[in-house]
Amino acid sequence: MSVKNVLIAGAWRPSLDASDTFSALNPATGKAIDETYPVSGMKDVEAALRAGHGAAVALLGMPDRVDRVAAFLDDFASRIEQHADALVAIANEETALPVTPRLKSVELPRTTGQLRQAAAAVRDRSWTMATIDTAANIRSYYAPLGGPVVVFGPNNFPFAFNSVAGGDFTAAIAAGNPVIGKANTSHPGTTRLLAELAFEAVRAAGLPDAMVQLIYRTPSEVGFALVSHPLVAATGFTGSKSAGLKLKAAAEQAGKPIYLEMSSVNPLFVLPGALAERGAGIAKELFESCALGSGQFCTRPGLTIVPAGAAGEAFVAEAARHFEQGAPGTLLGRAGLSSVADGIAELKRAGAEVLVGGSPIPGDRLSFQNTLLRVSGDAFLANPHALQTEAFATVNTVVVARDVDQMVDIARSLEGNLTGSIYSAESGDDEPAYRKIAPVLRQKVGRLLNDKMPTGVAVSPAMNHGGPYPATGHPGFTAVGIPPAMLRFAMLQSFDNVRHDRLPVELQDPNPTGSMFRRIDGRWTTDDVAR
Amino acid sequence: MSVKNVLIAGAWRPSLDASDTFSALNPATGKAIDETYPVSGMKDVEAALRAGHGAAVALLGMPDRVDRVAAFLDDFASRIEQHADALVAIANEETALPVTPRLKSVELPRTTGQLRQAAAAVRDRSWTMATIDTAANIRSYYAPLGGPVVVFGPNNFPFAFNSVAGGDFTAAIAAGNPVIGKANTSHPGTTRLLAELAFEAVRAAGLPDAMVQLIYRTPSEVGFALVSHPLVAATGFTGSKSAGLKLKAAAEQAGKPIYLEMSSVNPLFVLPGALAERGAGIAKELFESCALGSGQFCTRPGLTIVPAGAAGEAFVAEAARHFEQGAPGTLLGRAGLSSVADGIAELKRAGAEVLVGGSPIPGDRLSFQNTLLRVSGDAFLANPHALQTEAFATVNTVVVARDVDQMVDIARSLEGNLTGSIYSAESGDDEPAYRKIAPVLRQKVGRLLNDKMPTGVAVSPAMNHGGPYPATGHPGFTAVGIPPAMLRFAMLQSFDNVRHDRLPVELQDPNPTGSMFRRIDGRWTTDDVAR
Repeated sequence: MSVKNVLIAGAWRPSLDASDTFSALNPATGKAIDETYPVSGMKDVEAALRAGHGAAVALLGMPDRVDRVAAFLDDFASRIEQHADALVAIANEETALPVTPRLKSVELPRTTGQLRQAAAAVRDRSWTMATIDTAANIRSYYAPLGGPVVVFGPNNFPFAFNSVAGGDFTAAIAAGNPVIGKANTSHPGTTRLLAELAFEAVRAAGLPDAMVQLIYRTPSEVGFALVSHPLVAATGFTGSKSAGLKLKAAAEQAGKPIYLEMSSVNPLFVLPGALAERGAGIAKELFESCALGSGQFCTRPGLTIVPAGAAGEAFVAEAARHFEQGAPGTLLGRAGLSSVADGIAELKRAGAEVLVGGSPIPGDRLSFQNTLLRVSGDAFLANPHALQTEAFATVNTVVVARDVDQMVDIARSLEGNLTGSIYSAESGDDEPAYRKIAPVLRQKVGRLLNDKMPTGVAVSPAMNHGGPYPATGHPGFTAVGIPPAMLRFAMLQSFDNVRHDRLPVELQDPNPTGSMFRRIDGRWTTDDVAR
Repeated sequence: MSVKNVLIAGAWRPSLDASDTFSALNPATGKAIDETYPVSGMKDVEAALRAGHGAAVALLGMPDRVDRVAAFLDDFASRIEQHADALVAIANEETALPVTPRLKSVELPRTTGQLRQAAAAVRDRSWTMATIDTAANIRSYYAPLGGPVVVFGPNNFPFAFNSVAGGDFTAAIAAGNPVIGKANTSHPGTTRLLAELAFEAVRAAGLPDAMVQLIYRTPSEVGFALVSHPLVAATGFTGSKSAGLKLKAAAEQAGKPIYLEMSSVNPLFVLPGALAERGAGIAKELFESCALGSGQFCTRPGLTIVPAGAAGEAFVAEAARHFEQGAPGTLLGRAGLSSVADGIAELKRAGAEVLVGGSPIPGDRLSFQNTLLRVSGDAFLANPHALQTEAFATVNTVVVARDVDQMVDIARSLEGNLTGSIYSAESGDDEPAYRKIAPVLRQKVGRLLNDKMPTGVAVSPAMNHGGPYPATGHPGFTAVGIPPAMLRFAMLQSFDNVRHDRLPVELQDPNPTGSMFRRIDGRWTTDDVAR
């Protein structure tokens, strides 16, 4: 059986030093897919880093870099659309995510839309935050890092967060950096096909060949060497906390920036008035949100906090009915299946009671019962860390708190999360409770929602798909949203007394596009610098 | 002899668990100053963190927080001015930096000016980068971290970078966070006096008592526990690379943000045309820049790269004359004195030849000879790491490169620096050389200068007092410049479908000040959101 090629330095060629091979699994059948991919060693990694560094330097020297990068992003989006059927087919085989609506009508258009938003942001140039102090003649902006960015994609979004085509890839490329994609090992074929299209677009745009490179997998030590290598500029990682923390330690020890999106239980508070007004509707919404993508969304609510009493009990019963009746989805891989079981075991050990589900479903298909757990507010507060264990499937733990004050205490005991949601009465009855809980929850989460489930992550400039540790590695950055996500892959460059014709066009007196926003002497404007 | 009090939780009181005491040194006499300060242990640290966290939470709950913080910053600046004579006197005793012009006419006004710039930025609110997506009804901005920020100040700027009053302090407070100052142990008395004034201003502004706290020193392990403590929000550190890297490891292992300014040799390239045109003038400028603050500026040029030949030799001879004739300054402490000697020894071992100086000056005053070293480009490239050793005094190493191409190779071998300077001919003769060197140097430094020494660090929104590792810990942030420096101490907060009256005023439809800049649907504007 032939082993697939890696894409390094502009060539699809065999791994130089594969220590092993692997195949993906079809989660719907539990059977290995008949394609074999190499596990790359240091030779591949070194070659990719050298080529990526060369590409970064060449790119900085291209006077029309911005146009070429924007053209690449648009063209790559078009090529993805032209090959949508093939992409959707292989992604479906590797992930068991439904062809429609999910892959074809939702995730693929989101991915191409994000690429095109990035192309527009690149052409617009406002993302660089050009800042001009005319009195001191000091000017600054955000510029490419000057080296390759490594992207580790997660298993749960084969297009939208793919290490080739997804959010980190797009942000890093748009900021002017080459990318070395490390495929998620659950969908190497999807990633390979995306990389083929990306590489065609690289060629068509006249970008350096090593603008996009692809390896599939490495032993852990090689991964650590990759993110801490002198030639790497930065890393974007989306995945498990255990893998993320190890990569974080390796990268940071070498002084290399790494952006991580690791884990989140996305707490959801239902206030008494909302429960009374529309508890049943919220229970239905909760289940639907939990079941999206078989519960494998980073922003799936994993923890629901309700006050005790008749309305709380009715809510729990209604939620249980939905979890019981809903069709269990297919999980992405065997490791996920066992880690869900481990997570639920941990929640039970910590005092949670299983109301619905709790077990894997026998058979070839990788599936786990929809699972609803329950725990009292007292028990939660006695063991908050263990009761925030993530179980990445259609799993939710309802915390029945004694009263609103205990809901505040629970908010205070939370770790950093991507999102936090509060459902409150339309009537205004919940305002006092909201004012107690929201300020506490606000500091624990990247995105605060009202009366809305967190599973939708709009590609908006105002999005924060980020949050305090351990949801991510830094509370100031978002992984979704153009242009803010691009700033992760840029360096601040100041020019002090630099002669005018030597400045980047973004910082010269005339506005380079006529419409770019720049901060000139404290005012954001599209004007030229007055001479 | 009485041991001075720490400032914790709104009280000047004795350390709870001082394991030891220390006194500062008068560098001009080499004698200990007759004041004793405690070395705090975990009890002080825990107490300060608890109080700081309480202050952060209380602050977030104050509806007029922004006004109070701005009033504090302005008032603190005024109190510093009112006590300028006392501050300058004690700073002079503890640092031997000249009363005039340095301390009184330059550094103190810079410090109060920075505090007032921050007050204006706080009132203006544009620093929060409010971003509003009206179609999706998602809104984001940068908000306080919700916990105390720890600031470690350096020894070389007793006012402008003091852990109470300096750049990190000001940025952290302005972003809405309490500060726990860790005094630099070379000027505890200056820091104590600043903290007295700051605490008076805290009281006058009606801010939480623990908005400003002060400890003087801790054992290393207690420092590591401080920056990695669950209650700390972030740390700002300016100081040595060895201490900085240890704190970095401790903080990052716990997922805590830490911003470091650690070391920089600030390379300076003199191109052939500039040498021919005005080599002697540049040599004079170089010496003056190197001698500022006795060579103890973070942005002092430590490395000068010139091409070989008659003009290069003349430059070296002229520089040597200035280093020889200039009066040697006073260093800040004994540890500095020995580390300068160590640094020069390392440079010599690596192949540099001492042209001028090279030794400490005997006597009570802490002083080191002005020192000029020389090394060939070949030797530099054979051992670039060792030849970038920082020697924090009036010390410069001239690298005589074979030609412009070797100057490019030298630029390529540089580590991350705060600044890089290029002197080139007015005539335009150096344009080809500039175009070779500048792109390489640009990616290695936070601030690129033309025809200007790097020692001036203007408090400008376009300043980058930062740069790639190991100059700092992250290439995207600056320690100087209002408002950008404030973003280090803020978290990105997104509001998704949050009811209008629950939004922070910065994100409500009406512009809260009438003049605040917000990014509404992709356009920076002072308009209200159209309804």
